[in-house]
Amino acid sequence: MKNTQYAVIGLGRFGSSLAEELLKLGYEVLGIDVDEEAVEEMSDKLTHVVVADSTEEEVIRSLGIRNFDCVVVAIGNDIQASILTAILLKDIGVKTVVAKALSELHGKVLNKIGVDRVIYPERDMGIRVAHQLVSPNLLDYIELSNDYTIAELAVPKRLAGRTLKELDPRARYGCSVVAINRKNGVIIAPTAEDTFEERDVMVVIGTNEQIETFENEVIR
Amino acid sequence: MKNTQYAVIGLGRFGSSLAEELLKLGYEVLGIDVDEEAVEEMSDKLTHVVVADSTEEEVIRSLGIRNFDCVVVAIGNDIQASILTAILLKDIGVKTVVAKALSELHGKVLNKIGVDRVIYPERDMGIRVAHQLVSPNLLDYIELSNDYTIAELAVPKRLAGRTLKELDPRARYGCSVVAINRKNGVIIAPTAEDTFEERDVMVVIGTNEQIETFENEVIR
Amino acid sequence: MKNTQYAVIGLGRFGSSLAEELLKLGYEVLGIDVDEEAVEEMSDKLTHVVVADSTEEEVIRSLGIRNFDCVVVAIGNDIQASILTAILLKDIGVKTVVAKALSELHGKVLNKIGVDRVIYPERDMGIRVAHQLVSPNLLDYIELSNDYTIAELAVPKRLAGRTLKELDPRARYGCSVVAINRKNGVIIAPTAEDTFEERDVMVVIGTNEQIETFENEVIR
Amino acid sequence: MKNTQYAVIGLGRFGSSLAEELLKLGYEVLGIDVDEEAVEEMSDKLTHVVVADSTEEEVIRSLGIRNFDCVVVAIGNDIQASILTAILLKDIGVKTVVAKALSELHGKVLNKIGVDRVIYPERDMGIRVAHQLVSPNLLDYIELSNDYTIAELAVPKRLAGRTLKELDPRARYGCSVVAINRKNGVIIAPTAEDTFEERDVMVVIGTNEQIETFENEVIR
Amino acid sequence: MKNTQYAVIGLGRFGSSLAEELLKLGYEVLGIDVDEEAVEEMSDKLTHVVVADSTEEEVIRSLGIRNFDCVVVAIGNDIQASILTAILLKDIGVKTVVAKALSELHGKVLNKIGVDRVIYPERDMGIRVAHQLVSPNLLDYIELSNDYTIAELAVPKRLAGRTLKELDPRARYGCSVVAINRKNGVIIAPTAEDTFEERDVMVVIGTNEQIETFENEVIR
Amino acid sequence: MKNTQYAVIGLGRFGSSLAEELLKLGYEVLGIDVDEEAVEEMSDKLTHVVVADSTEEEVIRSLGIRNFDCVVVAIGNDIQASILTAILLKDIGVKTVVAKALSELHGKVLNKIGVDRVIYPERDMGIRVAHQLVSPNLLDYIELSNDYTIAELAVPKRLAGRTLKELDPRARYGCSVVAINRKNGVIIAPTAEDTFEERDVMVVIGTNEQIETFENEVIR
Amino acid sequence: MKNTQYAVIGLGRFGSSLAEELLKLGYEVLGIDVDEEAVEEMSDKLTHVVVADSTEEEVIRSLGIRNFDCVVVAIGNDIQASILTAILLKDIGVKTVVAKALSELHGKVLNKIGVDRVIYPERDMGIRVAHQLVSPNLLDYIELSNDYTIAELAVPKRLAGRTLKELDPRARYGCSVVAINRKNGVIIAPTAEDTFEERDVMVVIGTNEQIETFENEVIR
Amino acid sequence: MKNTQYAVIGLGRFGSSLAEELLKLGYEVLGIDVDEEAVEEMSDKLTHVVVADSTEEEVIRSLGIRNFDCVVVAIGNDIQASILTAILLKDIGVKTVVAKALSELHGKVLNKIGVDRVIYPERDMGIRVAHQLVSPNLLDYIELSNDYTIAELAVPKRLAGRTLKELDPRARYGCSVVAINRKNGVIIAPTAEDTFEERDVMVVIGTNEQIETFENEVIR
Repeated sequence: MKNTQYAVIGLGRFGSSLAEELLKLGYEVLGIDVDEEAVEEMSDKLTHVVVADSTEEEVIRSLGIRNFDCVVVAIGNDIQASILTAILLKDIGVKTVVAKALSELHGKVLNKIGVDRVIYPERDMGIRVAHQLVSPNLLDYIELSNDYTIAELAVPKRLAGRTLKELDPRARYGCSVVAINRKNGVIIAPTAEDTFEERDVMVVIGTNEQIETFENEVIR
Repeated sequence: MKNTQYAVIGLGRFGSSLAEELLKLGYEVLGIDVDEEAVEEMSDKLTHVVVADSTEEEVIRSLGIRNFDCVVVAIGNDIQASILTAILLKDIGVKTVVAKALSELHGKVLNKIGVDRVIYPERDMGIRVAHQLVSPNLLDYIELSNDYTIAELAVPKRLAGRTLKELDPRARYGCSVVAINRKNGVIIAPTAEDTFEERDVMVVIGTNEQIETFENEVIR
Repeated sequence: MKNTQYAVIGLGRFGSSLAEELLKLGYEVLGIDVDEEAVEEMSDKLTHVVVADSTEEEVIRSLGIRNFDCVVVAIGNDIQASILTAILLKDIGVKTVVAKALSELHGKVLNKIGVDRVIYPERDMGIRVAHQLVSPNLLDYIELSNDYTIAELAVPKRLAGRTLKELDPRARYGCSVVAINRKNGVIIAPTAEDTFEERDVMVVIGTNEQIETFENEVIR
Repeated sequence: MKNTQYAVIGLGRFGSSLAEELLKLGYEVLGIDVDEEAVEEMSDKLTHVVVADSTEEEVIRSLGIRNFDCVVVAIGNDIQASILTAILLKDIGVKTVVAKALSELHGKVLNKIGVDRVIYPERDMGIRVAHQLVSPNLLDYIELSNDYTIAELAVPKRLAGRTLKELDPRARYGCSVVAINRKNGVIIAPTAEDTFEERDVMVVIGTNEQIETFENEVIR
Repeated sequence: MKNTQYAVIGLGRFGSSLAEELLKLGYEVLGIDVDEEAVEEMSDKLTHVVVADSTEEEVIRSLGIRNFDCVVVAIGNDIQASILTAILLKDIGVKTVVAKALSELHGKVLNKIGVDRVIYPERDMGIRVAHQLVSPNLLDYIELSNDYTIAELAVPKRLAGRTLKELDPRARYGCSVVAINRKNGVIIAPTAEDTFEERDVMVVIGTNEQIETFENEVIR
Repeated sequence: MKNTQYAVIGLGRFGSSLAEELLKLGYEVLGIDVDEEAVEEMSDKLTHVVVADSTEEEVIRSLGIRNFDCVVVAIGNDIQASILTAILLKDIGVKTVVAKALSELHGKVLNKIGVDRVIYPERDMGIRVAHQLVSPNLLDYIELSNDYTIAELAVPKRLAGRTLKELDPRARYGCSVVAINRKNGVIIAPTAEDTFEERDVMVVIGTNEQIETFENEVIR
Repeated sequence: MKNTQYAVIGLGRFGSSLAEELLKLGYEVLGIDVDEEAVEEMSDKLTHVVVADSTEEEVIRSLGIRNFDCVVVAIGNDIQASILTAILLKDIGVKTVVAKALSELHGKVLNKIGVDRVIYPERDMGIRVAHQLVSPNLLDYIELSNDYTIAELAVPKRLAGRTLKELDPRARYGCSVVAINRKNGVIIAPTAEDTFEERDVMVVIGTNEQIETFENEVIR
Repeated sequence: MKNTQYAVIGLGRFGSSLAEELLKLGYEVLGIDVDEEAVEEMSDKLTHVVVADSTEEEVIRSLGIRNFDCVVVAIGNDIQASILTAILLKDIGVKTVVAKALSELHGKVLNKIGVDRVIYPERDMGIRVAHQLVSPNLLDYIELSNDYTIAELAVPKRLAGRTLKELDPRARYGCSVVAINRKNGVIIAPTAEDTFEERDVMVVIGTNEQIETFENEVIR
């Protein structure tokens, strides 16, 4: 087990996925929920789970939460419980408190009361899925800035056998292929002579328009 | 407006964020929810919204949904409504139906009844946030395969003025810096002489362990 | 006890009647319901009953359901539970899954997810009772095809003492009397000389119109 | 339209199926339910529907229900409403009142207050489905008495080309084949020379044991 | 204890008052209610109380109810429970079943299913109180027939010292004073010379109009 | 219409029966209930009905309730509404307020806040029915004091033809027959020679024990 | 502990604050609430707490409440429980009963049933806060009569160093400064030479207008 | 009307009392509540009332709330609504926001998000009433500091006719009488010769112990 200790309060779909992944990454995780059933369901997936009302100071103290390095408030629908839990956590001295916001207003309150990081998982996921829907070959992407993006694009069958030089995205569209992901390994910084194979995935970097044009004219 | 037409059924936090982003990307979007209040709240954000029970065939037909290119079933908590809506959409001939699953079992049913793409936004977001929590400098990432990842890492202050050669991640850790994102532009395929500045963000490609070691020893 | 093992999930009026009849026919039956009271009520009628949530995989597995030959999902009103239960049963490898559908859409989903036989008891019973209402002498019937029916008709008092020849349904209406059911036995393939007695029931085969005319003109 | 007028009170799954079938059989049907939504759903399937509380005498009178020939009380779950409706209908002089019972006790009350015919659709359907489950080739059946049954049995592929004489069920099992239902017609009272074809369905009459043995040894 | 055994089902205000009075009159009484709290409240007032659902046959049988001479169904608001309980009681052979009806329709059903005596306590009490309200001196009354009544009238102060002869109700109003109820005893069949005292109560017999006129002109 | 004006607040079974009887006795009655349905049901039985919350002073004032001679608070189950209504009525100066109490404590409060007469209809009716149950021939009775009662007793068939002298209740049991109620009239102060007929009802006055003994030995 | 014993029934925000303060003032306090959670929360703040329904006489008696000197009925929202509790307390002989009223009508009932002191905490606090809002320097006040008030006014910074003579409120505004509250003590009856310091608070007595003018022209 | 404009959000008992008092003090007040009934009840007491959900930014903006000088968040029980309303008000630039806290934690959140003044009316009133209960002659008081108090004490009958010199509280107890409140006026800074009359109220200043001893030995 690694040193950092995490607690996740709220074991809904987001919270439990987060907790499981932290465990998978090698960290100790304490899962907390006010709902007995939710806790029971996670009891065979996490090593430590407890049924507790996180808005009651004594309960929180008795769990020794102040010694955790990072506590994530992933409470699903109860804005009041989310806010009261977050202020309690900061009050008792938890170093890093991360909280999920259900709305912009909720997020503002969380910021004001000292939460270290406010996240909007549903909003962010909505944006991410929207991008994938409009570009069917887009598998994933990182938005580097308002202009630049790194996109992971599925290479269509008909490009199999073509060299990077033939496509020449840098010259024709301004965007660069920085890697080709292939079943048996990743080619980093591919050369002009590298040839695409079926089921390859290319990683492209460029401005949004460059990538969009490239995708529309070459990939799709 | 671009040609593809989208409909989003279920205007909760995920669905409404998705719908708004599609609009922002230049597409026509019809927003549908059975709850009047949810629809009203989106009425000034989307161009077309309607209150409708998506499990009733006649309602769905009367909205001309079959002519939409892609319909997203983003229904929040009602598994039954999600399933019945999805089968109705496939039945009336919608080309692409994307549906959000609340659990693995729910996802299996959606796949069996012919949904073209099943998404698990809360689960995926939980995983994504977990990675960001354990690597504070990790801003975003793309998982290329089980082994390879592209990571967007915040360059710490103390590396300002250092050249890429000095760090030499390829030689010492096996991972490559494919881009440096700087306030006034992105340096693609930086050379060994490129110097880091404060607030730079580097994009690194490599295996998970390579990046993790690099991050732990150099970045953090 | 015979070899085939049945489980009935959902012990409402339909499910419990089905389970009791299977037991009466000499089979072993396990009755399952999520509602404690429903299970308790059947506990003195069935040999094996259990309170369990059939949508939870571990619960279902722990009951050894995969070894049953045939499982009937007779869940009353909860479409979601019906669908999730059915897919779970197919998933864990139950050979034959029969499920009750509450609506056509529900039935479509059940078919898509691999249910072996979908039944609509209320709909079918509605049709059956309608036929009996419009023909008061019709006790029961089998619809052989869209055209042909076998009908069980109560013989009215006033026909007592009349021979089959006198009525001669084959010649006059085109339909045949294939059996006469009498208190002390059944006359199969009655001859023209057979005489009707009070309280006899005749079994007639023919097209729908033939039987309807025969019933209207002779029986009623 | 035929002369007899029906009213169906309670438009659940059973009631609405019954009402639709009566209409299909050529009769006028008035559909009544206390629930607006249920009525609306049937409004495009039946010619006359009305939202009304059938336990209020004035409401019932104002609908002219006393002039209907037969009123079916198909109320789903509310025993009190079923009983009060039924006594009201008899009180105002409806000639034939048919009522669905939810339990034996309920059925006893309905009989005592003068209901002309009490039906138990879920119980009966449970029994019927049980028989079909245990005999996979049994398509339908009529129970003539405690001993005798007419059964409609699917003829298995491997019997195609065999004559009735070869099987000789009367001699070997005691039961008679009274008809063979074939795609292009029904053979009534088939002769010993009649040959079975694929997808034939035979209609057999006999005692329960005779048919069961015949089915087990020959058909299955 | 006297021999007759009573059971009262339903321990609301009416039922519990009835049960307590029966006990006071020297009879054994078993009190039954489905509500635990209602039973507990009566447990120190009645000798035998039990929490039970009177609509379940086995429960009723296990209490040995069939051996009671008279069972009163005093169920407060649940018409269904009242009817099902009553038919069960008659079914298992209780000699005398008395039941409280909540409405005329309810009363009709109770009569039809064989209840020996149907009572309408609230309706009857409403009538009784109405009479007392319009005649402030009327303490109580028995309606002998549609015409004749025995009334218990408070003698007003100003009649103290007057003899019955002076009032002479028989001659002047046609009604007779059959008794005078005085603090220290009752004068039965008082003579003309009997003198009224303060706080006397007279018992008058006559037609309704005779008594009304007498009350209006002499007593009030 | 007579002069006294009544209002009845609370149109449950007791209140509506009371209101109807007052109307029948020739008085004007205003019926008030907070429940629309209850009011509607009485709208064709009473001349004046209104939906109103009787705990709101302005509502009560706007109805001109202070001009009514007598207001009956017959509120069914809501003790708070009963108390607040009653104090409001006394506050605005209603001359006579009569209120139904649901318990002794409730009755005490009503007395303390100045209600002119507190009634306990269910309790009183329970007592009355108890007496009738234990004496099957007792049709009705007036309790004159703790000792004395006037009882209306059904004369059993077998006493037909017997004279009052033969029974001689005064000499043998101490109680007097003050009237005989017969189909075609009432015999007041019957003589020793008066003969009983079938279906006669006698009115007896005496102490409780006298009447009980008389009833047990002679009447029953 | 001092001699007087208090009980507080209803441990909401007002009741629990009252109970805690009484304890702080050195008195024994018994806290009672019908809600288990409310009682549990106070169990570590009060010495005696109990879960009990204060409207049940036996419960109240068993707690020995009649021996308490003063019982406060601080029930939050349930007017019925408040009234029934109060009359019970007076009935069993509690010397002093104080009760919180939720409305004027409620207060009237409490007075009528003999409650010794009726308080309206929310109403009174609303008035008090209103005064403080309109005079930002007003810290607290006592309303001596309709005209006269004692006000505690924060001395503004700019008056530091000024003598009372310089302000001369008595001569110029008619109101007197009776005390100056300073960090290290209170100057009672200050002389004309007393000099104000920063953060002083003065206590002024006078008519409302005098103080208002003084505050507007000098203090604010 | 005075210039300052107030809005009160939440028209429960505290909020409506506060709003009414502000109006009485001569200010314009806008009353807001999400509950229609609460608003209606205040509509004849306040000049401006509106039904609105104060947690929706557009609603709040459309009411022009940002132009009000002071907005009081007096929301009764909904902590979430209280917090979201308060942050919205600060966000849109309301100068002074006063908010009622339901608990300490709630109060902390309100402080953190920038509320200008947090009040605890029920807690404060509980404390105030506790003091009055333990000192029956204490009518009101101001707590100047932890030590010093000004108390308004009812002068008991038996002190009528006594001079201040006779009591000499300054010499004997250390506390001073700064005013005597009498029916026809207030004597400020009374002299030693001033004589107490019946029903006088004295205003005393001193330390808590001084006043307590004085009250116990002289006043009570």
